[in-house]
Amino acid sequence: MTGRLVIAGLGPGAETLITPEVTQALADASDIVGYIPYVARIAPRPGLTLHPSDNRVEIDRARHALTMASDGRQVVVVSSGDPGVFAMAAAVFEAVENGPAAWRDLDIQVLPGITAMLAAAARAGAPLGHDFCAINLSDNLKPWPLIERRLRLAAEGDFAMAFYNPRSTSRPAGFARALEVLTACCGDDRPVIFARAVSTPEERISVVPLPQCRPEMADMRTVVIVGSSTTRVIARAGVPLVYTPRKVGP
Amino acid sequence: MTGRLVIAGLGPGAETLITPEVTQALADASDIVGYIPYVARIAPRPGLTLHPSDNRVEIDRARHALTMASDGRQVVVVSSGDPGVFAMAAAVFEAVENGPAAWRDLDIQVLPGITAMLAAAARAGAPLGHDFCAINLSDNLKPWPLIERRLRLAAEGDFAMAFYNPRSTSRPAGFARALEVLTACCGDDRPVIFARAVSTPEERISVVPLPQCRPEMADMRTVVIVGSSTTRVIARAGVPLVYTPRKVGP
Repeated sequence: MTGRLVIAGLGPGAETLITPEVTQALADASDIVGYIPYVARIAPRPGLTLHPSDNRVEIDRARHALTMASDGRQVVVVSSGDPGVFAMAAAVFEAVENGPAAWRDLDIQVLPGITAMLAAAARAGAPLGHDFCAINLSDNLKPWPLIERRLRLAAEGDFAMAFYNPRSTSRPAGFARALEVLTACCGDDRPVIFARAVSTPEERISVVPLPQCRPEMADMRTVVIVGSSTTRVIARAGVPLVYTPRKVGP
Repeated sequence: MTGRLVIAGLGPGAETLITPEVTQALADASDIVGYIPYVARIAPRPGLTLHPSDNRVEIDRARHALTMASDGRQVVVVSSGDPGVFAMAAAVFEAVENGPAAWRDLDIQVLPGITAMLAAAARAGAPLGHDFCAINLSDNLKPWPLIERRLRLAAEGDFAMAFYNPRSTSRPAGFARALEVLTACCGDDRPVIFARAVSTPEERISVVPLPQCRPEMADMRTVVIVGSSTTRVIARAGVPLVYTPRKVGP
């Protein structure tokens, strides 16, 4: 049988946010590869082998998946959210580029998913309704000065911003520094959305003015969205609605 | 019966890219509101009224949907892709903010969808695997100089970029100018992905080096993705794979 490698996005958490194309790929799989908590979302069944692995071994995991697909297996690499956004797809293609030439001719498909920032934006209103940037705040794979530089340029361009991996226990200082940079660049009048574990039982959404943001409001399960200068907050009972108007200027 | 307004993303085109939560909302609807080609994607059934409307009447459409929800109808506003990305969600909240106070207390939900840039990125590989920006190139709702400014800042920050609405028959000049700006800022060594009508029978994907891009390669059904300085192209039989590595620097 000809092998196949699918890199699939499981969305932010809820079953109802998984596309039918991903559900079908999971049903057709012989092997599921991914980070432990994502593989844990797949129901075991006869004929399916689960290969959970730890964080920070993305290239090893990608090579393992490619090797199995080369051997004729039907392999699905699972990511949370969308596999192309700060997730496994780039790791798999990095392994392809640096691996045996035959890997380039494998049947490799990326199946998109609902990425965390769009699930978060939907819960809050429409904060990403105008031009925006997506920035990974982890400095595990890039130097911190580059992150700060991007924050300043994004603020200068008046983009809304979505931050992935804002804060972890091993990197507590970065997000605090990011908030300082943003406060200096953006002034006081900016709504910030903290969206944690959207679509799961642990979901928590809050909208906080930039000067009142505290680093501990975010963790690794939080996506943070910062409005542009035109972003509006509509007060109402409960969490306010936040949206960025389509139109800028007169 | 209490009214409800759902703003739902239909994804880029294929049925298999519509989330189960959106499918359920469509099944529960009494009224579907949206731009003509998007409403045309909904199968008629008894008890369901379709309200297609023309382009550029987004606020009228939003007010109509809100009025029907106030009257107790189960209304779904449909957008292509994700409703929060250059689509109807921001228009609905703009109408809420400027409408009767009672609209703020309506049950309004945004259901995310697979947005065009992520469907396009998945087809090409993983070009948005590192920090990126999403920019609407239409100057219908913002001044053109702001678009150019954002292009320059995004290039300065070495973001990958995804462009929505790159070119229409009524705005043929903007995308040509955008290519000039990018060529000046980014130099020659930059892959550009033209992804047209992804997941539909008219799908067409091409990867073109920046200096070889021509304005007529894009139209309103095309999403254009421009790599960052680190984006890699993996040659193989057929369309090459494009990805942006997760890691930057030594």
